[in-house]
Amino acid sequence: MPQNPAESEVYFVGVDGGGTKCRAALVNASHELQGVGDSGPANPYQDFDRAIHSISEAIELAISSAGLNPNIKHELVVGLGLAGVNVPSIQAKVEQHAFPYASTFVTTDLEAANVAAHGSTEGAVVVIGTGTCGFAHVNGKSLSIGGHGFPMGDKGSGAWLGLSAIQAVLLADDGLGDKTLLKELLGEQLKTSGFGLVEKMQTAKQSEFASLAPLVFKAVDQKDLVAASIVIEGANYLSSLTQRLLDMQPPRISAIGGLAPRMLSWMDRKITARFEAPKLSPELGAAIFAHRRHSSPS
Amino acid sequence: MPQNPAESEVYFVGVDGGGTKCRAALVNASHELQGVGDSGPANPYQDFDRAIHSISEAIELAISSAGLNPNIKHELVVGLGLAGVNVPSIQAKVEQHAFPYASTFVTTDLEAANVAAHGSTEGAVVVIGTGTCGFAHVNGKSLSIGGHGFPMGDKGSGAWLGLSAIQAVLLADDGLGDKTLLKELLGEQLKTSGFGLVEKMQTAKQSEFASLAPLVFKAVDQKDLVAASIVIEGANYLSSLTQRLLDMQPPRISAIGGLAPRMLSWMDRKITARFEAPKLSPELGAAIFAHRRHSSPS
Repeated sequence: MPQNPAESEVYFVGVDGGGTKCRAALVNASHELQGVGDSGPANPYQDFDRAIHSISEAIELAISSAGLNPNIKHELVVGLGLAGVNVPSIQAKVEQHAFPYASTFVTTDLEAANVAAHGSTEGAVVVIGTGTCGFAHVNGKSLSIGGHGFPMGDKGSGAWLGLSAIQAVLLADDGLGDKTLLKELLGEQLKTSGFGLVEKMQTAKQSEFASLAPLVFKAVDQKDLVAASIVIEGANYLSSLTQRLLDMQPPRISAIGGLAPRMLSWMDRKITARFEAPKLSPELGAAIFAHRRHSSPS
Repeated sequence: MPQNPAESEVYFVGVDGGGTKCRAALVNASHELQGVGDSGPANPYQDFDRAIHSISEAIELAISSAGLNPNIKHELVVGLGLAGVNVPSIQAKVEQHAFPYASTFVTTDLEAANVAAHGSTEGAVVVIGTGTCGFAHVNGKSLSIGGHGFPMGDKGSGAWLGLSAIQAVLLADDGLGDKTLLKELLGEQLKTSGFGLVEKMQTAKQSEFASLAPLVFKAVDQKDLVAASIVIEGANYLSSLTQRLLDMQPPRISAIGGLAPRMLSWMDRKITARFEAPKLSPELGAAIFAHRRHSSPS
């Protein structure tokens, strides 16, 4: 078999895996992108076997997209940044899995996002999407805040905004809370009202509650005070969470996630003034994380 | 077959069915108790077939306990007071079921409890248990408040107290909330802490959260301010809910449910002074409800 000189290089793969999709990026030792691959859900807490399958598939597609021999997978240094591995038993299970790669380093999607945001392990991120959480890594110390999921935590998140909207409408219906435009907006989107809301959302998942979050901002835009008080409560929590991260004096801090633009405008301005734009995408963060661990195992 | 003279009488059966158990009481036309029967879960919203089975079983046991011929079931006038039929589609499904009884009337456990509390359809009840809700029936008008279930509603309930306790501990762990004795108390009961709490309670049901409620009162007894603020928030909600029922001017009002004694002591005293003790047990309320409907169909 003729040896391709490129294949004698060391390649790194970063994987960003979450509840709906998975993306792998293959880079060379200079972190130049060689190929990418996309696959399905890869949250090992929700479905372990499916996550392993999605990770393998995304990596195979990235190898192919880079024009490399499939067998190179045995030489790859892989970094997995995964949702769900903040649960210690899940992280251990993924680490114990017999991956076919030369070496595999596992971390949270949060730590990978932090590396991506700053191009370095040093820094902090606040995630404001379907869920909310914060992470900082400064001088060898890590801090994770929030990320406890729905309904136990994740205040200020899409899921929390949606749940709060339903609660506000039910309270208003009972004459125990102020009237709100949310009643009409939820009714239009969910095609039901009153007890029908309860029936419809009783078994709803985090993502279904999060799909109601845009209605809260729509009501806020129409000067609805109930909706505004929900957003303010969430934003205050996020300001406190961010301040805890800033107390660690990270060199940089970024806010990421689909709801970050809207929520930031309601947070404490002295705090949000500190946010800087993320430098890289999360899968590249996972690749850099793998490179660092490979060079200096912790 | 010799006819037992007693069997020519009209008998009424009341059934109180909830998420964990079901009790049937068989009474004569003077509402004198002839027999009782107990069986398993009978919440048709949670498990329709199981609820139908539990109802049949409890009624058969009540017939047997009254020393009556099993065939008398075809002559019984039955009142079902069931959890879960506050969901309109579920009430319709139960009403459409082909029960073997002479007639079957279906209502919520709440309306049956109201009849039981006052020995009459006129009055109001506040339920403070695993869930919370309120019901009033005055001059032909009915009002139901709350009872939206966990996590969308049921503020001040056992499930809500348990969830609030977990949230408070997670906030304190993150340095975003005041320290609380609840951390130690939850740790002892659940044998875990930190993210382990999240892992343990992620898929917990309403009843599992409610099993943590006694810890909140235990912390309150030890002057824990975080626990006290949770209880006060729940009690304020229950005071507002009760006031809404009092606005309808019911002739009597009662508070029922396992957490009523503890929560009442934190509610507005002008409001709780109005509560009177329930007169009868819920299954007898369901029997009286059946008798009223039988005599004057609505």
